[in-house]
Amino acid sequence: MIKKIDHLGIAVRDLDASIKRYEDLTGNPPAHRETVKEQAVDTAFFPLGDVKLELLKGISQESAVSRFIDKRGEGLHHICFEVEELTTAMTALTALGFEFVNSKSAQGAGDTKVAFIHPRSTGGILFELVEHPKPTLE
Amino acid sequence: MIKKIDHLGIAVRDLDASIKRYEDLTGNPPAHRETVKEQAVDTAFFPLGDVKLELLKGISQESAVSRFIDKRGEGLHHICFEVEELTTAMTALTALGFEFVNSKSAQGAGDTKVAFIHPRSTGGILFELVEHPKPTLE
Repeated sequence: MIKKIDHLGIAVRDLDASIKRYEDLTGNPPAHRETVKEQAVDTAFFPLGDVKLELLKGISQESAVSRFIDKRGEGLHHICFEVEELTTAMTALTALGFEFVNSKSAQGAGDTKVAFIHPRSTGGILFELVEHPKPTLE
Repeated sequence: MIKKIDHLGIAVRDLDASIKRYEDLTGNPPAHRETVKEQAVDTAFFPLGDVKLELLKGISQESAVSRFIDKRGEGLHHICFEVEELTTAMTALTALGFEFVNSKSAQGAGDTKVAFIHPRSTGGILFELVEHPKPTLE
């Protein structure tokens, strides 16, 4: 059902300072930066093998990431799994007892579909599921 | 310096119940189970692409994992990066301002060498570095 880990979402207070830190760790600059307005976050991506580290900084006090940092401090915010078909995965995982934060999927960055599994049904970890757009035939 | 994410360490209270949960999520049984006496943990590994999820249950109250759960509850315990040469990586990262929990590397499972970077120098995440044994020529 789950194909692979897509990325790890890491909540940070200061995006520029954190980018410097992950440049030091990985030896590379971020491959991509993006503001995702719907989630109220600024992001920076560091690819590492076939997984990405995604730094997340809230850009408003209502951002889930800002609230997470207020409560728990900086650190891992979520683990994202890639799935083939998001709706199919949500139905199957719901039948197995996993609870989704929202019953419907949402639009993610880069034309993806995303949904979050509530930490109370996973042992304390916020899991995101992502379905990437299918490549179109030329 | 860092080649890839080797595994994600996940602290759990009940290993059998958690194995059931990750079998449901991944669609597969654990590839490997092992008791690591030096770390006082029972572990189970779920490979996912080129990364492994490592479930960790403390087997004594002195286990770092048991203490982590007492303080923070279940959840992500550490992110492990694979490096080519652990000593070289430790020297380079120390020069960049990262602080190691212990100044010397330790013996890990399966003849690996491991070291942990203190969360206070990483933005709240415990990073492990692992050097795998080099394949020997026949």
